[in-house]
Amino acid sequence: MSFEYCLSDIVNFLGAEVDDSQGVVISGLASLKNATSGDISFIARARYTKSLKNCHASAVIMPRGYQKYFSGICVYSNNPYLDYAKLSKWFDTAVKKPSGMHPSAIVAVDAEIGANVYLGPNVVIDSRVSISDGCQIGANTFIGSRSSIGKNCRIESNVSIYHDIVIGNSVTIHSGAVIGSDGFGFSPNGKGGWEKIYQLGGVSIGDRVEIGACSTVDRGAIDDTIIGDGVILDNHVMIAHNVEVGENTAMAAFAGIAGGAKIGKNCFFAGDAACLGHLEVVDNVQITARSYITKSIKKPGSYSNGGLPLMESQKWRRNAVNFGKLSQIVKPVVDKD
Amino acid sequence: MSFEYCLSDIVNFLGAEVDDSQGVVISGLASLKNATSGDISFIARARYTKSLKNCHASAVIMPRGYQKYFSGICVYSNNPYLDYAKLSKWFDTAVKKPSGMHPSAIVAVDAEIGANVYLGPNVVIDSRVSISDGCQIGANTFIGSRSSIGKNCRIESNVSIYHDIVIGNSVTIHSGAVIGSDGFGFSPNGKGGWEKIYQLGGVSIGDRVEIGACSTVDRGAIDDTIIGDGVILDNHVMIAHNVEVGENTAMAAFAGIAGGAKIGKNCFFAGDAACLGHLEVVDNVQITARSYITKSIKKPGSYSNGGLPLMESQKWRRNAVNFGKLSQIVKPVVDKD
Amino acid sequence: MSFEYCLSDIVNFLGAEVDDSQGVVISGLASLKNATSGDISFIARARYTKSLKNCHASAVIMPRGYQKYFSGICVYSNNPYLDYAKLSKWFDTAVKKPSGMHPSAIVAVDAEIGANVYLGPNVVIDSRVSISDGCQIGANTFIGSRSSIGKNCRIESNVSIYHDIVIGNSVTIHSGAVIGSDGFGFSPNGKGGWEKIYQLGGVSIGDRVEIGACSTVDRGAIDDTIIGDGVILDNHVMIAHNVEVGENTAMAAFAGIAGGAKIGKNCFFAGDAACLGHLEVVDNVQITARSYITKSIKKPGSYSNGGLPLMESQKWRRNAVNFGKLSQIVKPVVDKD
Repeated sequence: MSFEYCLSDIVNFLGAEVDDSQGVVISGLASLKNATSGDISFIARARYTKSLKNCHASAVIMPRGYQKYFSGICVYSNNPYLDYAKLSKWFDTAVKKPSGMHPSAIVAVDAEIGANVYLGPNVVIDSRVSISDGCQIGANTFIGSRSSIGKNCRIESNVSIYHDIVIGNSVTIHSGAVIGSDGFGFSPNGKGGWEKIYQLGGVSIGDRVEIGACSTVDRGAIDDTIIGDGVILDNHVMIAHNVEVGENTAMAAFAGIAGGAKIGKNCFFAGDAACLGHLEVVDNVQITARSYITKSIKKPGSYSNGGLPLMESQKWRRNAVNFGKLSQIVKPVVDKD
Repeated sequence: MSFEYCLSDIVNFLGAEVDDSQGVVISGLASLKNATSGDISFIARARYTKSLKNCHASAVIMPRGYQKYFSGICVYSNNPYLDYAKLSKWFDTAVKKPSGMHPSAIVAVDAEIGANVYLGPNVVIDSRVSISDGCQIGANTFIGSRSSIGKNCRIESNVSIYHDIVIGNSVTIHSGAVIGSDGFGFSPNGKGGWEKIYQLGGVSIGDRVEIGACSTVDRGAIDDTIIGDGVILDNHVMIAHNVEVGENTAMAAFAGIAGGAKIGKNCFFAGDAACLGHLEVVDNVQITARSYITKSIKKPGSYSNGGLPLMESQKWRRNAVNFGKLSQIVKPVVDKD
Repeated sequence: MSFEYCLSDIVNFLGAEVDDSQGVVISGLASLKNATSGDISFIARARYTKSLKNCHASAVIMPRGYQKYFSGICVYSNNPYLDYAKLSKWFDTAVKKPSGMHPSAIVAVDAEIGANVYLGPNVVIDSRVSISDGCQIGANTFIGSRSSIGKNCRIESNVSIYHDIVIGNSVTIHSGAVIGSDGFGFSPNGKGGWEKIYQLGGVSIGDRVEIGACSTVDRGAIDDTIIGDGVILDNHVMIAHNVEVGENTAMAAFAGIAGGAKIGKNCFFAGDAACLGHLEVVDNVQITARSYITKSIKKPGSYSNGGLPLMESQKWRRNAVNFGKLSQIVKPVVDKD
């Protein structure tokens, strides 16, 4: 795909400043390292100034003060990283489909489909589903009975959305994601086996949520599972039944929240971070990689219980074996102090 | 959806007791907190008695002795949680499809389809597949050659079942799950690369198994991978090639069993618990969250090697760095004792 | 399925040796334990000689020196495990589909489809896709605009490949895998929420790569995500945006590589091993199960920070609680030494 934008239009869009945009036309957004003439790039951290010196971009978005490192056009920004994010959409190569329904899409007669909606090949829309204006639904995606999708959602191919799911506006769901599968609810049946607890609740997803590839959000046992506005979930994330995730909370890959846990707003779960069931976590909590929450957190801040120092495996084994002796040694030593 | 059941019918079904069901009609199953008039609820643990006091349900399933906390109708049960599980099916909102084959379903001419089977839109049934009576197969699901599905199975949308898989009766498989993909078998080829080992075995899944969304069960290298009757697997579970999982064993999200491991009956793997390859684990073993089995377990019980105390990240880093000194300090101290 | 091969042909194919193949016909490849007459088996490790004694196979691939344990035909090999791998393809039961396009497949008019390609039911091939000779594409798989697939690839059912993805020759991708989903890129928007960074890069996958079920490879933010030749990924693997994975590196289930990390050649990530973002790892590094890389690795070798000794949960809790006291005790003790 090819793009052609006047640099001055970009500068205006960003509310940035430039000494002289020189009538330059920008045809690409590139990294400092790989940019060539015609590209715009950005620098967000001081440690990249070396790359800036050797950068062949026509223009670079930068904080004031970096102009000495760059011989091209400097676009001054108070927040180059955010401006890069805003500008990235101008260079998106994802194919925005024309509205319309592929002839192979299968839509229940009582489904409601809004204006300017694209339904891809083999999309299946079940009974009484509602899809609002401007949605793009990718190939082979299934949407179950009575679920509703807000405006301008982007649902990729091979997504599975069960029945009675409510999704807000401007939500993105990537391929392989599953929304509304049964929560993992079983009671011991008194005979050594399990009695399934039918999962009667739904899932409620707010506005501007992004859900990564192969992530799953289970439906509630009785009440709903709730994902707040602006939540962003990476790939392979697991949200169990009746979890509540507060607004703008972010979770990296393999993060998992067990049943009934209530996570606050603006929290951050690093990769493989988790939370045990039925706990409560206040707003503004960060959980570092591989750590998991074992008790409710009442105070904002960063918490850990994962991430021991990486070492050669042989050395690790020597230390690890001694972990089992900790209770033997810590008591006398600490008591002495 | 709307439900209307006589409370007396519910009580009879559960084998519970009630002083007087008062001809009440029950229209919903709700949590203590959110129940309103017309709902039935349940209380399973003493710590919820506070919610019971403020509960607006028409009836609550409870152990004898709790009636003093509730002003509505008390349904006495020896096991309120199990009774809730049994009753939950009465209020299930999942859409049971009428039997029949959607015109878009693609079924090989030599496939055998039982009575009262529902095949959803775009379902693909390959050559010589057998699907027994009462199955419901969701949209866009694929079932490969010569696989057989027992009676009354519920297979959701976008499920992938490879060839030569045997699935028992009353099995539930959620969206995005993959059954029978190749085990991860490769031999170093002597030239720095890998020689693929074709995976010749199948998968055998027992009766009443539940497999969660985006979980995977690989086919065996030579012999079969085996999932026993009554096994329940949450989302994102990984069962590698030639694993055997004993009856009624339960695994929570992200649990993983490596190749050739043999897990006993009635075991429980908490979230992210795992087992290394080629190990054996006896019946009735519990593995706590984030722990993983590094050697065969011969004695029932609960085992751990994950789950250090959660602390502020700064404090964690101070402790973690000292982990690398353990082998230095433990020896002299322990030896002194 | 039934197979019939002359043992002498097998021996020739492997470049192995046999005293006398006796005109035997081989109809199956089986494990030592389950082999019966007509089968060929193999022994790769000395600890299985016991099984060899009781083995009913007609022939066994073995190193010289093992013939005393076996009464059948001995096929001498310098590398029985590799020879088993090579031979396994002869007994593969996966159904190789005849070339052709199922009538339900939906192929854009400007897509290029090579010779001897199989496109399964409901396959969706978007605009300007190129699929080279000999590919097999399973049911309900989606391939997005301008992506190209090399020769002789095997792409299973329900796979999602986004736009602008380049895949080499002889690549295998299992069901539920997602290639080219958006990297997890967001900038704080200065108002408590997130600004999406459109992911403009693609994914480049080399030759002879295998990608397991439900694994995901995200597209790059600006430049491409790169998977080298011969890389093998198990199920549930996560490759984030702009990661580079060197040739022949192997990753077991749940391995995850965070954004921008550069992994060398011939590395091995055991189950649930991971690497934090923007790190560099040289060739020939092994990461043990549950360990993760917290800083760049410049020296080949095996590294760990996961895998404490498994113990009874009660004992674990006693030791774990003392972990939080490590910084208190280690300093005085170590300092004294």
